[in-house]
Amino acid sequence: MTQPTTRQTPFALPSPAPLPAAQHDATPGYTEVLGALLGSTVRLRLRTTLPVTGVTLRFVRVGEIESHPAREIHVPHGEGRWFEAELPVHDLRVRYAWQLHLPDDHLNVTRLGVHHTRRGFRDWFQYLAGYAAPEWAWTAVFYQIFPDRFRNGDPGNDVQTGEYEYAGRPVQHVAWDTPVTREGDIHAHYGGDLNGIAQALPYLTDLGITGLWLTPVFVSPSNHRYDITDYRRIDPHLGGEAAWDELVQGADAAGIRIVLDGVFNHMGNENALFRAALSREDAPERSLFTWRDEPGKPPYHSFFDVPTLPKIDYRSGFAVQEFLAGEESVVRHWLRRGTAGWRLDVAHMIGAGGTDADNLPLHRTLKRAAREERPDAFVFGERFFDPEHALDGQGEDSAMNYHGFGLPVMQWAAGRTYFDEPSRLGGAELVDILWDAYHALPPQVALTMVNLLESHDIGRALFRLGNDPARYAAMFTLLIAYPGVPCMYYGTEVGVSQSRPGNMPWCREPMPWDEARWNTDLRAHVQALVQVRKAEVALQRGDLTFLPAGDDALAFLREYTHADGRTERAVAVASRLAQPHPLTLVLPDGAWHDVLGGEILQGGEVTLDAHGGRLLVQR
Amino acid sequence: MTQPTTRQTPFALPSPAPLPAAQHDATPGYTEVLGALLGSTVRLRLRTTLPVTGVTLRFVRVGEIESHPAREIHVPHGEGRWFEAELPVHDLRVRYAWQLHLPDDHLNVTRLGVHHTRRGFRDWFQYLAGYAAPEWAWTAVFYQIFPDRFRNGDPGNDVQTGEYEYAGRPVQHVAWDTPVTREGDIHAHYGGDLNGIAQALPYLTDLGITGLWLTPVFVSPSNHRYDITDYRRIDPHLGGEAAWDELVQGADAAGIRIVLDGVFNHMGNENALFRAALSREDAPERSLFTWRDEPGKPPYHSFFDVPTLPKIDYRSGFAVQEFLAGEESVVRHWLRRGTAGWRLDVAHMIGAGGTDADNLPLHRTLKRAAREERPDAFVFGERFFDPEHALDGQGEDSAMNYHGFGLPVMQWAAGRTYFDEPSRLGGAELVDILWDAYHALPPQVALTMVNLLESHDIGRALFRLGNDPARYAAMFTLLIAYPGVPCMYYGTEVGVSQSRPGNMPWCREPMPWDEARWNTDLRAHVQALVQVRKAEVALQRGDLTFLPAGDDALAFLREYTHADGRTERAVAVASRLAQPHPLTLVLPDGAWHDVLGGEILQGGEVTLDAHGGRLLVQR
Repeated sequence: MTQPTTRQTPFALPSPAPLPAAQHDATPGYTEVLGALLGSTVRLRLRTTLPVTGVTLRFVRVGEIESHPAREIHVPHGEGRWFEAELPVHDLRVRYAWQLHLPDDHLNVTRLGVHHTRRGFRDWFQYLAGYAAPEWAWTAVFYQIFPDRFRNGDPGNDVQTGEYEYAGRPVQHVAWDTPVTREGDIHAHYGGDLNGIAQALPYLTDLGITGLWLTPVFVSPSNHRYDITDYRRIDPHLGGEAAWDELVQGADAAGIRIVLDGVFNHMGNENALFRAALSREDAPERSLFTWRDEPGKPPYHSFFDVPTLPKIDYRSGFAVQEFLAGEESVVRHWLRRGTAGWRLDVAHMIGAGGTDADNLPLHRTLKRAAREERPDAFVFGERFFDPEHALDGQGEDSAMNYHGFGLPVMQWAAGRTYFDEPSRLGGAELVDILWDAYHALPPQVALTMVNLLESHDIGRALFRLGNDPARYAAMFTLLIAYPGVPCMYYGTEVGVSQSRPGNMPWCREPMPWDEARWNTDLRAHVQALVQVRKAEVALQRGDLTFLPAGDDALAFLREYTHADGRTERAVAVASRLAQPHPLTLVLPDGAWHDVLGGEILQGGEVTLDAHGGRLLVQR
Repeated sequence: MTQPTTRQTPFALPSPAPLPAAQHDATPGYTEVLGALLGSTVRLRLRTTLPVTGVTLRFVRVGEIESHPAREIHVPHGEGRWFEAELPVHDLRVRYAWQLHLPDDHLNVTRLGVHHTRRGFRDWFQYLAGYAAPEWAWTAVFYQIFPDRFRNGDPGNDVQTGEYEYAGRPVQHVAWDTPVTREGDIHAHYGGDLNGIAQALPYLTDLGITGLWLTPVFVSPSNHRYDITDYRRIDPHLGGEAAWDELVQGADAAGIRIVLDGVFNHMGNENALFRAALSREDAPERSLFTWRDEPGKPPYHSFFDVPTLPKIDYRSGFAVQEFLAGEESVVRHWLRRGTAGWRLDVAHMIGAGGTDADNLPLHRTLKRAAREERPDAFVFGERFFDPEHALDGQGEDSAMNYHGFGLPVMQWAAGRTYFDEPSRLGGAELVDILWDAYHALPPQVALTMVNLLESHDIGRALFRLGNDPARYAAMFTLLIAYPGVPCMYYGTEVGVSQSRPGNMPWCREPMPWDEARWNTDLRAHVQALVQVRKAEVALQRGDLTFLPAGDDALAFLREYTHADGRTERAVAVASRLAQPHPLTLVLPDGAWHDVLGGEILQGGEVTLDAHGGRLLVQR
C-alpha cells in the first residue's frame, strides 16, 4: 500500500554530531525582535557549521526577490559560524530565506530546512510587522471548564426540573454523580456555576493554571449555552453578574486570566433580537438574519439547519456593531467586564449572507475592537479544520490546534479517530502532519496556538487511551511541551473519563470533588509538568525539531537561543504503548535533567523509557 | 549535512504490482467535466485496490467539511473497484478529498496521495467553477522568438548604425553572424523582423510548432523592445503593420497561433504618455506614474529604478482603461488585430502606487477584458518565482513555469544554477520541488503552465549542458512530456548555443539559416518528440506520477483515463549524465512503445538506457 511522505523537520540531528547544518528561528539569538513596526529594520542571524564562502539574506518585495549579503559576526556563546543581515519590514508579512554559498554547492535555508532548490513561498520564513501575540498567552497554561459540570458553588441557583421547556421538552435537574446520558445531551443541568469555579480557584492555582477558558456563560436555555438568549447577562443559573464579578476578582488575585466563549456565528432562538425579527416584517432586527424559502429547512439560515440556532448575517451593519465593533458591542462589553479575551465558537463559519463570506475581514474587525478595548486581549478561533489561511496576525491571534496537534496526536495515540474509526497512523506520518501545520504559521501564531488533547466536543483523552494513566501522562507531556498554549480539559487530571465511547455528551461528565475518587498520582504528575512548562522558556518560546522515534513514540526538541548564543533546550518523548518502551535518541551534547525522574543524562546517544512520557531539560 | 525531504508523488509504484492503492485525478475517468458552472453538480470517481468497506467524498462548504457517501459502480474497462459521488460546485474553488473506510484502518486520499491524516487544505483536490483553460493551449507546442535575432526577412527595414540614440548612446546595426557582446546588450540590432518570421512559417510547421510567443514587437528603441514607445504600432524595424498582418494570416493558415508579450508594468521613457506627463504638472498623464522625491533615484517609480523604464501606476483609472480594460485598451486592441493571447511581462510586479498592490485584482481585470474580446485568449504571466497564489483561474490562465520546472530541472541537469553557482541538487530533491509546485495547482492551471528550459532571460540549455546534444535531448524529453505547455526557445533545436556562460545577452545569439551549420540530428529528434506530444492525450492531459530513478535520472508517468476506464499512458525518462545510464524502472503492465527507438517493451521491471532521454507510450 502507498506509504505516506515523511515531511522532515528542518534538521534531523545526525549522530553523533548534535548541531544542525544551519539554523535560523524566531528566538532572540536569531531574530532581534518580533513584530517590529512597518517601515523599520530588523537584524536577523544565521548559524552554520558548513564551510560557507558567503551567506545572503533574501526577501520578497514588490513580487521580486531581493538579496542582501550577510556579514560574519562574533556571538559570545554561539557554536559554529554566525552571520547577520538586516531585513526591511516593508510589508505586513515579509517572506524571507537565506542562501549559503559553498565552494561546490549552493543552498537555500527556509522554514523547511536546508534545500538545494528555492522552495515555494509557503516554506519561507515569515516576518509579521507590528503584530505581537499577547505576552501573557505565550506563557499561560489553560484549563477549559464546561461550567455546568465543573463545580456547584450555589445549589440555590440550580435549574429545576421542569423550570422551563426548550425545543419542546422540559429541562431536568440531575444529581451531580449521575453519568451523562444521550437524552440529557442538552436538557440535563447538573448545577455547576461560576460560584463553584470561584471556590475552586485554590485548586486551579495549586495545579498551576494561569488561564481559564469557560464555555458559554450567558443566559441560555441549554446546558451547553451555545444558544444564547442574552449576550449581556451572565446566566442566573450560573450565579449571574455577582458571581462573575466575584470570579474575576478572585482570578485576578490568583494570577489567572479568564477567556470567554464568543458565539458570534449564531444565537439562540429565544434571543430578543431573533424574536423581534420574527415579530414584524419591518423590524430592524430582520437584517441580523438571512431569510430564505427552501422546502424542509427553517425560513432562515441557521447552524447546520438547526432551527433553534439562527445564523447571524454580517452583511448587516447592525450585526457588526451589536456583536463585534460597536462602542457597546458584546466583544467590548465583556472585555470591560473583566474577560481577558475571546475564544470564538465556529470561527470558520462566521460570515455574510448565510455563508462564510467575508470571514477574514470580519475577524479583523473583531480583533481590532478587542485590542482597542484591551491591548492584551487574547483572541483565538475554534477552527476545527486547517486554519492556516486565517492566521496572519490580522484576525484571530491563533486557533484551537485540532488540525495541527490534538486530532492527529490522539488518533495516533489511541489508534482510532475521534469518530472511533480504526486508524493505523504511524509515527513518521504523525510527524509529517504536525510539521506541515507548524512550519507554515508565523512564529507568533505558532507559539500561541491553543493545543489540546480533548475538549467538550471530542472524547476524553484518558478514555480513548484505555483509561491508562501512563498513556495519558505520555500525551500530556507532549501537550505541555509542544509549541503553543497548552489547554487542559477539566477533570482529566484527576482521572475523569467516560462511561462509553463517543464525543459529546459522553465527554462532559461532572468533576468529582470527593478526593477519594481522584487519581492523585496523575494529578501530581500533571502538576509537576505544568510547573516545568511555566519555568522553561524553551517550552514557552523555543523552536521545534522532531527527533526520529519510530512508529510508536514521538520525540521533539525545543530550543531557545539567547542573543548571546546561549541555548536553552528541552526534549519531550512519549510512547503510545501501554508497556515499557526503551527508545534510543541522539541528544545535543551536555547535561540533561529529567524533570520528573530527577536523573541527569549526558548528551549523545541516550536510551530511555518512553512509556508514560519523559521531559528533559538543558539550561 | 542535512538531507532534504523527498515529498513523494501520490503513488509510488510498488514492485511488481503496477496499480496504486487509490487513484483520483482530473481526467474523464475520474472527473466528469472540468470547469462546470457555479451551482451545478459534477460526478467524481475514485478507483482503489484496497479492501474498502466504504468510500466517502468530503468537501468544504461554509468552512465546514461535508461528507457524502460514494456508491460502488461498474466501469467497463476499469481495473480495481470504482466509486462515484457528486460534488456540488458551490463556490469558485471547491476543495475536496476522499475517505476510505477499511475494517482496520481509515484513510484520506488527497492530491498528495493516501494518508492516515486529514492533510491541510493546500493538499486537497480543487475544483474550479466556470473556468476553462483555452482548449488550444492545452495541446499546443510553443516556440519563443526574440524577433531581432530570429530571421531578417527584409533588410530594408533594419535599424541603421547611428540611426538614433538611446540612453545616450547610438544604436548599432550588427551583421547577422556576429556573436553577441555585452556592449550590444541593448543597442545592437541584428535586423530580425516579422517578415522573417512569416518566411520561416514552413520551417516552424515542419518542426510541428502550433504556438508562437514573440517577445515585444511594438515601437521601442532597444533591441529587446521591453521599453515601449508606442503600444499600438508594430515597430517599423520589424516590418510594421503590414508585416504583422501578413504574419498573422500566414500563421493562421499554418495552424499556428501567436501570443504577444504584454509589457504592462512599465513603459519606455520615450513613450508619448510619459513625455506628456513630464511636460506639464497638470497633464492627465501624470496619473499614470508614481511620482516621488528620493535622493539618488528617478523622480518616479521605475523598473528596478532604471530611469528609462517608468512604472505604470494602476491606482489610475486612466492606466486601467488605457492598457487593460478600456474598450480600446492595448489588451483588446491586439486581440482584435490577431494575437491569440498575451504573455505578461513581470506579471508579479504589476500594481498600484509604485508597488505590486492590487496585483491579483488587476490581473482579473486584464483577463476578463481579454476573454471578452476573444473567448479563447490565452493569458499567462511571467512569474519568475513561486506563482501559486496567483493561479486560481480568475487571473492569468497560467504562468511561465520557471519555479516548478525550468529552473530546478536545469539546475539539476547542469549542476549549476542559472547564475552559474555550483549545485549538488539530486534527483530526490528535484522530484520534491517539482511535485510540491505541481500538486498545489488547480488541474486546468497545471496543464497550461508554460514549461521551458531556457528563454531570452536565462542561459541556453544546450550551452549549460556542455553543448552535449544528448544531454539536451534528455531534458527536451522532459519538457515535451511534463504537464503543461512545452515552450522551446528559438534555435536550440539546431544547436544554437552561447559564446560564454551567463544569461542575457549571451542567450540571444542569432538563428543561423545556413543549414550546413545545423545539427540536423538534434532537429530531427526534437521534431519527432514534438509529434509524439501532439499525438498523445496522455502527454497533453494526463496526471503525473514520479517514478524512483536515483540522483542522476528523472522519470515520470502520465496517465489519462477515459470515462470507460481505458487508460492511456506515457513514461518519460531522462539522465543528466553524458554517458550510457542503464536505469531499472517498474512500469504498469502491458506493452510499451519506445517512440524514438521503435522498441516494444513489456511492463513490469524494465531496464533501459536513460542517456539522451526515452519516451514510452502505452495506448
